[in-house]
Amino acid sequence: MSPFQLAAAALDHAAVFVFAASGALAAAERKHDIVTFAFFAALTGVGGGTLRDLLIGAPVFWIHRPGYLVTCGAAALTIWIFGGGRRREQLLIWLDALGLSAYAVIGAAKALSLGVAALPAVVMGVMTATVGGVLRDVVAQHPSVLLRREVYVTAALAGAAIFVALTHLRLAVLPAGLAGFAVAFGVRAGAIRFGWTLPGFQPRVH
Amino acid sequence: MSPFQLAAAALDHAAVFVFAASGALAAAERKHDIVTFAFFAALTGVGGGTLRDLLIGAPVFWIHRPGYLVTCGAAALTIWIFGGGRRREQLLIWLDALGLSAYAVIGAAKALSLGVAALPAVVMGVMTATVGGVLRDVVAQHPSVLLRREVYVTAALAGAAIFVALTHLRLAVLPAGLAGFAVAFGVRAGAIRFGWTLPGFQPRVH
Amino acid sequence: MSPFQLAAAALDHAAVFVFAASGALAAAERKHDIVTFAFFAALTGVGGGTLRDLLIGAPVFWIHRPGYLVTCGAAALTIWIFGGGRRREQLLIWLDALGLSAYAVIGAAKALSLGVAALPAVVMGVMTATVGGVLRDVVAQHPSVLLRREVYVTAALAGAAIFVALTHLRLAVLPAGLAGFAVAFGVRAGAIRFGWTLPGFQPRVH
Repeated sequence: MSPFQLAAAALDHAAVFVFAASGALAAAERKHDIVTFAFFAALTGVGGGTLRDLLIGAPVFWIHRPGYLVTCGAAALTIWIFGGGRRREQLLIWLDALGLSAYAVIGAAKALSLGVAALPAVVMGVMTATVGGVLRDVVAQHPSVLLRREVYVTAALAGAAIFVALTHLRLAVLPAGLAGFAVAFGVRAGAIRFGWTLPGFQPRVH
Repeated sequence: MSPFQLAAAALDHAAVFVFAASGALAAAERKHDIVTFAFFAALTGVGGGTLRDLLIGAPVFWIHRPGYLVTCGAAALTIWIFGGGRRREQLLIWLDALGLSAYAVIGAAKALSLGVAALPAVVMGVMTATVGGVLRDVVAQHPSVLLRREVYVTAALAGAAIFVALTHLRLAVLPAGLAGFAVAFGVRAGAIRFGWTLPGFQPRVH
Repeated sequence: MSPFQLAAAALDHAAVFVFAASGALAAAERKHDIVTFAFFAALTGVGGGTLRDLLIGAPVFWIHRPGYLVTCGAAALTIWIFGGGRRREQLLIWLDALGLSAYAVIGAAKALSLGVAALPAVVMGVMTATVGGVLRDVVAQHPSVLLRREVYVTAALAGAAIFVALTHLRLAVLPAGLAGFAVAFGVRAGAIRFGWTLPGFQPRVH
């Protein structure tokens, strides 16, 4: 492995870890057991990437690389041991924000690397970033972060779009990816801290 | 492109458009922003066809043809601009009925064209027709149209079955498709307007 | 077909049948019509196996073997005719337990047969076993069995892990599969009858 590939793999595992931890935190709210923790960790940690791989026709990334499942298990165990405390809801939201930002870039990057055009690659980034969390919330019957008024999908969209645009301007993958991650995380952080929203739908009564 | 292929592509985009619009309308109920509108439009618009393609092992239709995503975006924008008014719920139901009827035929037709047998092709039509709406309702945490007592799945089943039967009787695809669409839409329209139901389950207490 | 293949196919259909019946029972709670019964039967009956096949890149098992859909239809009809009575909830839980146990083994076995490593094969068994029921509960908006405190995922995990471990110890597939099934069903039955739980998450307030 080149240092670059190593860095990419490390980032990928980090993204799986934070999303998996957010899944375990959702399980923690209902005082589930360690196996259910691991189930939610895996569902959330690899859900988005699994859909991405199915959609672009790539082999599903964790099937032939069991390390990703080990990462999910480690995340579940970490939350089991350290996940108590009053700030659980906050922690879930911030881990989700990190996962969202990382996956927006990773999803778009994998799609581009397989020859997908710019617009579907951006959509793939958005899907990869949001599907894990949606699965977590739907299966845990938890109010979906997607349905809150604060900016959420928009953060993933901004990050994926910036990354794809910079890549098309022939910027190297690493700086383009960092820029995409920073934009996505910045937008989402603003939404969490300051309640950033886009204008909502204003129906005109005809 | 032959005129026939052109007509097929136009119908396909029309079906994506109406389902996407129904997705945007579901987002409208919660006064979401334009990006969330587009997210629900894409989820609903391409969800059913995506599952169909995954199941039959075909390349996912919108990945290499970005035009479908543009159609979803246009549907989101249309609802954003014109979707107000008191009749929103009604509009959602009728757009859903159009999408249901079109996809029942399109899903079965694509399955048949790839050599799938009659029964699974009918099931594929039903799935393609219903999955987009189910995804929309589950993710939007909206009461699922599937769970209402009125005829819904039955309309898709009738349309797909008529289409597959007529095709097996060697009718050409276009008239068979129109007949299937008309039957599905007629059945669903009757359910919406007149509350058509099939006999419900009557448990006998033993 | 060899007698062994025949036995495997019979078991596979039996697993689809019991899960499909549990899906039809979920539809029965809302007094749905026979078509919706069949829809839920198919969703639950083939849902888990469909995801398994998509994940490991195998052709989806029911597409080219319409017999599985016939099995789902038969399950729907059986529940329609005989599914009344006060014990419906109980019946659903026990059919689900049978399906869970069978699929934990079948899912892991198919993954192993396609060269998947031990850990992902176990996870595949767990997913195949749980996804049909999760889909049923999410789409029927029924309180998910997954979210109850009793042991559920753990039963699938135990069965799949035993099966994969025994197979790696070079035990033949049939005894290993029976052992896996028995362990999964035993654990789940204990959970249903005696309320077996694993220790739940105990947050320490920091």
